[in-house]
Formats: sequence, C-alpha cells, structure tokens
Amino acid sequence: MERNSFLKLVKNYKAVFLDSYGVLKTHHGLIKGVENTLDLLRSQGIRFKILTNDASRSRQQQVEKFNELGLTGLTTEEIITSGTLARHFIEDKNLQGSIAYLGTDSAASYILQSGRKSISIKEVDLENCDDIAGFVFLDDEGFDWNTDINKTINLLRIKNIPVVVANSDKLYPVSFRDVAVGTGGIAKLVENILGRKFIHFGKPDSQMFVYAYNLLSPSQDFSKNDILMVGDTLQTDILGGNKFGLRTALVLTGNTSNRKADMLISSTGIIPDYICESITS
Amino acid sequence: MERNSFLKLVKNYKAVFLDSYGVLKTHHGLIKGVENTLDLLRSQGIRFKILTNDASRSRQQQVEKFNELGLTGLTTEEIITSGTLARHFIEDKNLQGSIAYLGTDSAASYILQSGRKSISIKEVDLENCDDIAGFVFLDDEGFDWNTDINKTINLLRIKNIPVVVANSDKLYPVSFRDVAVGTGGIAKLVENILGRKFIHFGKPDSQMFVYAYNLLSPSQDFSKNDILMVGDTLQTDILGGNKFGLRTALVLTGNTSNRKADMLISSTGIIPDYICESITS
Amino acid sequence: MERNSFLKLVKNYKAVFLDSYGVLKTHHGLIKGVENTLDLLRSQGIRFKILTNDASRSRQQQVEKFNELGLTGLTTEEIITSGTLARHFIEDKNLQGSIAYLGTDSAASYILQSGRKSISIKEVDLENCDDIAGFVFLDDEGFDWNTDINKTINLLRIKNIPVVVANSDKLYPVSFRDVAVGTGGIAKLVENILGRKFIHFGKPDSQMFVYAYNLLSPSQDFSKNDILMVGDTLQTDILGGNKFGLRTALVLTGNTSNRKADMLISSTGIIPDYICESITS
Amino acid sequence: MERNSFLKLVKNYKAVFLDSYGVLKTHHGLIKGVENTLDLLRSQGIRFKILTNDASRSRQQQVEKFNELGLTGLTTEEIITSGTLARHFIEDKNLQGSIAYLGTDSAASYILQSGRKSISIKEVDLENCDDIAGFVFLDDEGFDWNTDINKTINLLRIKNIPVVVANSDKLYPVSFRDVAVGTGGIAKLVENILGRKFIHFGKPDSQMFVYAYNLLSPSQDFSKNDILMVGDTLQTDILGGNKFGLRTALVLTGNTSNRKADMLISSTGIIPDYICESITS
Repeated sequence: MERNSFLKLVKNYKAVFLDSYGVLKTHHGLIKGVENTLDLLRSQGIRFKILTNDASRSRQQQVEKFNELGLTGLTTEEIITSGTLARHFIEDKNLQGSIAYLGTDSAASYILQSGRKSISIKEVDLENCDDIAGFVFLDDEGFDWNTDINKTINLLRIKNIPVVVANSDKLYPVSFRDVAVGTGGIAKLVENILGRKFIHFGKPDSQMFVYAYNLLSPSQDFSKNDILMVGDTLQTDILGGNKFGLRTALVLTGNTSNRKADMLISSTGIIPDYICESITS
Repeated sequence: MERNSFLKLVKNYKAVFLDSYGVLKTHHGLIKGVENTLDLLRSQGIRFKILTNDASRSRQQQVEKFNELGLTGLTTEEIITSGTLARHFIEDKNLQGSIAYLGTDSAASYILQSGRKSISIKEVDLENCDDIAGFVFLDDEGFDWNTDINKTINLLRIKNIPVVVANSDKLYPVSFRDVAVGTGGIAKLVENILGRKFIHFGKPDSQMFVYAYNLLSPSQDFSKNDILMVGDTLQTDILGGNKFGLRTALVLTGNTSNRKADMLISSTGIIPDYICESITS
Repeated sequence: MERNSFLKLVKNYKAVFLDSYGVLKTHHGLIKGVENTLDLLRSQGIRFKILTNDASRSRQQQVEKFNELGLTGLTTEEIITSGTLARHFIEDKNLQGSIAYLGTDSAASYILQSGRKSISIKEVDLENCDDIAGFVFLDDEGFDWNTDINKTINLLRIKNIPVVVANSDKLYPVSFRDVAVGTGGIAKLVENILGRKFIHFGKPDSQMFVYAYNLLSPSQDFSKNDILMVGDTLQTDILGGNKFGLRTALVLTGNTSNRKADMLISSTGIIPDYICESITS
Repeated sequence: MERNSFLKLVKNYKAVFLDSYGVLKTHHGLIKGVENTLDLLRSQGIRFKILTNDASRSRQQQVEKFNELGLTGLTTEEIITSGTLARHFIEDKNLQGSIAYLGTDSAASYILQSGRKSISIKEVDLENCDDIAGFVFLDDEGFDWNTDINKTINLLRIKNIPVVVANSDKLYPVSFRDVAVGTGGIAKLVENILGRKFIHFGKPDSQMFVYAYNLLSPSQDFSKNDILMVGDTLQTDILGGNKFGLRTALVLTGNTSNRKADMLISSTGIIPDYICESITS
C-alpha cells in the first residue's frame, strides 16, 4: 500500500483518535515531534482524544506521566483509558458486595473508588468469600503470580460472579527487545482454563470508541466520517476503528514495522484506510 | 437462580430491548400473550426496541412479517436488525467500487441500496474482479453452497478487501427439532480457512446496542441503568447486554430451557441479572 | 535457513516418508524428475512410503492415478492414506448398526466395506435413524452442500455417536489460483457449531506415522532417526513428522514458496530440520 | 448410559491401560480397594500399564510414591509418564547445544539426563543465549512465575527453537476444592501469546498410547481390541483411547462425577464404550 503524509491527511478530518504507545511514545520516551503535531491539531481546531488500553494509571496519572516525558498541556478529558471504561461499568453495575481484584492497590483505588468495598486477591479467604460480588483483572503487578493466579481460578470456580478485564492487551513492550504478559494475557489464561468468557475493556472492543465519540460529540455534531483513528497495531487500533466505522491510519513507529506492514495487512485481512510513517510528517 | 416475574420487573425500567426469536416468537408463531405485554409497555410509557440478528429482511419486511403473525402496530423505528447496522457501516465506509455478496438479491437490494454497484458472488468473474471493493456475507440463501462458498474463498484470497458479516449468528432454528447453519457460521468457516478476521454485526457485539441506545435517547436522557435487555440466548443477548452495561433478563421461551438454564449460566460464566419464565407473566 | 540438496541428504537415511501433493505432483501433473528420485531411492535400498491426507480414493485407485500421471511401479503397500486409517479404525471399533456418511458412494464403498451397513446422509431419515451407530466425514463431494451439511448437524444433535473425519485437511488446491474447502473444513464447521470434538485422521495426527512406521519396520529394525519425513506443508507434514520424532525436510515445490518459507517457519514456530528446493535435486 | 461392573468387564480383555489420578488415587490417597483390583489383574494374567500425564517425577519416583501410599509391587516398567516420552523425544532429536527449561532441577535431571547440557530459565542470559538449542516446559514449580514466564516468552521471541511440553495438562487438582495451573496451562499461555504451536506430550495425544502398546506387545501379539483404556477424564483418557482405537471405560472416582457424566458425554461428544463406578467393583 501507498504511504501517506499524516500532516496532510489529517486536515480532512474534524477529529483524531490517537493510540498512545507506538504513536506518541515508545520505550525510548516521547517520539520526536509529536508536540508539534498536537500543537498543529490544536491550532487548526482539529480535536483529539488519546485512547489507550491501560488500567494501571488514572487519567490524571497519565497526564502527569506525559508531562514527565515532556508532553505538556494535555488534559484528563483528552485521555481515555480502558480502566476508565471498566470503572464506569462497575459503577453502573451496582454490585451488592465486595469486588475482588488482581492488580495493584493503586489501580484498585481509582477503578473501584467511591466508597465501594474492594479486596485484593491476596487477602481473599476462600473459606469465607460469600461477600464477594465481582472480580476485576486490573494489572499484571501488585500480586504474586506463583500463588494468586491459582487463587483467582479457585475463587472463580466457587463463585459465579461477573468478571471484568480492565485492559485486554495480552502483551506489552518493556524495552526494545523485551515484552511482558499483560492483564489481558493472564485473564485469557484463566478464561481458557475455566471455559468462561469475561467482559473485556479496551480496543478493539467498541466501548472505548463509543465513549470517546460521545465525549467528543455529545450533541452528535460530528459524523463518524469526520474522525480518523490512528494506531500502530492492526489487531486493536485498526480493527477497532474499522469496526466502529471510522477511517483508520496505521503508523509505523510502533508494533508494525515498515518492512512487515504489507505482509501483516494481507495475512490478517485488517486493512487500514491509510498508512503513514508517523504522526510527525 | 431465582425466577422473576417479567411484568413486575419491567416496571422498574424506562425502556426494554427485546430479542425477537425466542422472546416474541418461535417456529410455532407468536408466543401467546406477547401482544398484551407490548400493549402494557406502551400504556405505561415504557419504550421498547426489538434487536434482532437478521440481515435477510428490511425493517419494513420485519414489520410485515410480525403483522402476518398477528402482532400489529409495530413501527420500523422499533425494530433494529444487524442488517441495518451493516448497511450504515457500508454507506459510511464509502468504498470506491462494487460490493460482492453471498446471499439473496433481495437482502442485497436493501443493504447495498442507494445506487451502489453490487454483484452476487454467483456473477463474479474471478479473472476480472478488479472493480470489487468490498464483500458482505448477507444470508445463507440465494446461492449454491456447492460452488459459491469456494468461490468466495478464492475471491478473498485474490482481493484483500473489507469483509462484513451482516448477521453473526452461526445457527438458527427452523423447526422444533431442526437447526440450520446461518450466515455467521459460513463466515466463520471462511475466516477459519483464510486466517482472517471479518467485521461482524449483531449481538453480542455492541454496535447494535449503541445504535438502539442513541435512537432511544438522542439527548442522553436515559441512563443505561434505565434499560433492561431481554433475550433467550446467553452468548448473544445476555453477554452483549452485560457488556454494554445494561441490566439483563434471560427468558426461558427459546434457546435456553428451564432445565438447563442454571447449568449453562454456571458453565459459561455469562450471568443474567434476572431469569423470567417469559415476557408474558 | 540454509537450503539442502535432497539427493545428498537422503543418503543418510534408511527410509523416507513422502507427502504426495506438492512433493510428487501438483495441479500441473507429476513434478518433473520425481521418477528418477524414486528410482534412485529404490536402487540405493532406501525404502519409502507415500503418506497422503486423502479419503476419496482407495490405495489401488491412488496407484492407478499415479500411473496415469506417468509415475509407474508404485505398489499399494507404498501408499498410506488417511482414509486407510479411518477404515481400520471403524473396523476395529466394531459399531453395532449402520454408518452414515457425508461423501461419495465410491469412497464409502472402500472405507466402509466388508459387509458393513452404510447410508449416505442424503438417504438418512431423521425421523427414523435409530439404527445409525456412527458417522464419517469422507469427502467434499457426493452430496448437496445446500441441504446435507444441515442434515448432518441435525443428525448429530439427535444421535450422540462416534464421528470420524477421514481426511482432516481443511483446504486443498484445485488449480494454480484456486482452492476448495476439504472434508476437514466441513467437519471443523460442524464441530464448531456443535461444540464437539470428532476423531480426525491424517497428518499432523500421529496415527498415520505410527501405521507407516509399523509397516516399514514390523520387527522394529528401523529407528525413528533412520527416517526422513518430506513435505511441503508446515502444519501437517513437518509438525506431524517433528512430533512423531522423525527428521523433517520441507520442500518448496508446493504450499510453501521459497520466498515465504523463512517467514512462515519463524511465525509458526514449526521448524523443519532441513529445507530442500525439491526432491529432484 | 448404563453403568458396568469393571471387574466383570475387564475379564474380556488381555490388557488394561490405567490413568493414575482419579482412577488409582485421589488427593485423599489411594482409592480403597485398588490393590485388590491390581492383584486380580495379575492373578488372571491381565497385563496393565499406568499412563499418566506427569513430568515432575521419574518412573522410579512414581513407584516410590505409590509405595508410600500403600500400593506396593509396581515396577517402573508398569508406569509410563508423559515425561518419559518427552525424554525419548529429546534424546532422539539430538539437538546440538543446551536445552533451557521451565521447571524444577530435579525434573530436568531425569528428563534431560545423559550428559546433555541444560539450563534453567532462571539462569538464562538473554544477551548471551546463542548456545540454546531447545526448550522444555517441565513443571509448574521450580521457578518464579513473576519473572520467568516473561523471560521464557522473550527467549522464544529471540530464538526459534524446538519447544517441548512434557505434560500437556492445563490444570491439576490439589485438594477437594482447589486446582492449580499445570505446565500445559503455562505452555498454552505462551503459545497463545507467541502464536506458535509447541510439541505436547501426554494424553490425549497418541504417543503415550503408541509407546505403551509397543511396550506391551513388542511382537504385536495383542490387537488393539484386546486392550481397555480406563480413565476419569473425557478430554484426555477417553478421547485419547478412542482415537488410538482402544475400547474405553470412564470411571466416576475422579474428574467426572456420576451426576454430570451423561451431560458431559453428550455435550462434548466424547463417548466411552463403558461407564464404571470405579475399578474396584
């Protein structure tokens, strides 16, 4: 497929949805020039939202993290995480009882906030768990994999309760060479073993797109044709954007290298409308 | 799980989403008493939408079919089909070229309407298919399974184009004893063989819920908590409703029998908020 | 990976297992030079067996087909088909009753021979099928896809009987450009829809390797290290050979092109011990 | 299905293959009366082999473990483990270099014995792993799940080497209430994340049956019809036995309770030839 200039392309849209990792930043830090691109979007009145599969940090913590990296001026309203969605879901669900979780207490404190009783899987007593009314996979840290994955499986064998996966990514990058199993990978293992289906939040599922779209366009003044979804991963960003009915642009600064892009598009059948080197040119 | 009275339960909601087959009708015809239930909903100001995985009939044809069965007074606005969603998607996508399809010409005429060029897989010339820009799985009828499924596979090996599945149901009931493979089943076979992922419309995916919700509540005056999703199938109606954040009620007049309901809920982990015998009591 | 000369390599082995399609022949006919290779094997005392996923022809018919293509001198003992295995299995199983099948009557006559009662799905009466004690997926021809796949599904919903898939290949080539869904693809669709697991015969499953090995080496005078498995398909020939403990050689005359071989090996993790252009050099 | 007396049934066979956990013992210890059954088999000249998915103990350690439980008189020849098979496979494969493993050093010492260089994943240096020529999933203990599963994934991203799973069980019981993720479950997670297929040993795959059969009947004096496979798990023991062509008996002393047996047989389509309460009556 032909390569497009993002800076030219974006002028045809009223709004842009941007993936975070691989589009704005990598393990090296901020991708050089993204500040300028965001400034350009602002100056031209093109609105944007950052859509990221992440449940470990609140929107405020995301803003602060971008500040540290040198990208200032973002607002919490501009960042939508899969954790945000999981939090709304749990609030709406209004479960009577305590929510058990696999993950850090800090992730729990923002996702399960507002006075709700919650309990880390570490603290759960399997002999005495009548009060537990829901379960959330929050993060791949904050617990002991040696014992707490088994404990989760045993809890969910005893209790048939709603289970939420606050970030469906199976894998995430930790350095140029290394990756790590994410919350979504652990949840998949447990689903596989129990033969059940949990409720997953994050791209490519459409709740995040629905949420961002409603936030952008509460009185429906934007049509889907006005919005460009930009991402580095076919299976999440592009598949999700296509499915929601947005135009999609694949960038080559992250998961999908220039060398492999055409082969991956052809073998997966997930076809972006455009391919751009990066969002900076 | 305890059984609830639907007629009592529904009074707590401002709106209801109803599955069609197994909730309003079966292969025997209309379920006795559903007219009264719909009248009651209308008289109490509880709004409703019928959400059905079907791409073979337009909304107008659906209304006429219900009329024939004896359920009069429905409007096209009250019926949302997966075909409707596929049609909007294709319109929005604005593909340049012809759309090939597997299904009846009548389904094609309403889903691919509005002057767009379309061509049945039967008529496609694989030696000369440059013009084809998209493909839709519409229906399990209107083509020859012996040849046209293979032809579809060969077309999609040559052309890497967007592929839409207008009804994701793998199976549908045709009599008390018999079922038939649906469009979604054929699409799954082709996905499996090509190793690709198509864009599926229909429950449990959330586009239909998004669409119905926006139609019901254009100025967002209904919260999700105000809506009850009612269906007979855990994997589509209940999973989809749960995921979208609605309260869900399983009825026992269709796919899920009273005898098997608890076992299926426990083995799938898909948990309705309520179980009701039917919508008529 | 480095490319090897098959003719040099094979001298280190006492026996060779050869896939048929893509190794000995293609849709064009016999691959030029394979007669010489087989003559060479014979003259050097290297024994060989042809292992093919095929249930449509008996071993004798296979020999005749090779004769037609110009490869003479093969014996039925040198050809092992997945159909042979399915036949032995059904004989051993000694089911009391009739065997229903999806496929041609000619395939049925050799696989379900020896006086056993058998019945094509076309002839099955679903109202009166008490006598049916087993089911075999034989071939992708000999029935009407429009009706008989559904009929198979409905039969297997009524009767919980052993189901055998006599050729597990999901796809087979019919010309340079075109492929067709094979018996294994149809069986997979039915398994997927019913949520069951059938008994599949054919590479990569090991029964065919066991059978060939026992035939070659009844008094266990060959070790597995003495045998080279040669095939053009990673997922069947190479995976099956590796798993059975043979050395494996991928040839590039069929499914796996020279251009894609390294990429496919790396992405599937199925690693042949050797790669050869063909068996003729 | 009807229930059969094992003690009557077994008289029709020349040999029996017995699963271990759920047939001979449970988490409570030896199932009462199995000594008598084994004595009876011996006295009547019915030969038996114990086939178990286990890679954590050598055959000698298995014998000792049974001795501790009170079942004396077993020989190492009577016990076949998936670990035995993996060990033979690795020996035959003759990989040039070191084998990395996930599991205990004690399991490594018997599976990777005979002077072969091996290295625990704990000790692997990802910057310097040129020498590693194969990988084995041995056990769910002996490493730190928090770090070493990720390390395994990163190693296998760098090195495309043969990977063996020495016990394919995804789950195993640890008490009346609790289960734990087994080696097979961890391997499945890694396969899922890498998109690769490893070489799995253990029921239902047929290598263990081939091995036991050859051991029992080196001069092929037993036919498959002479052998009864006995197990408590449909997906491993019964599926594997059926597929290999043996008669199969499900016992109700383990995974499959009397209450659920018929439902599970019907929903999985895995059909034992017989159902027996236990091997003791």
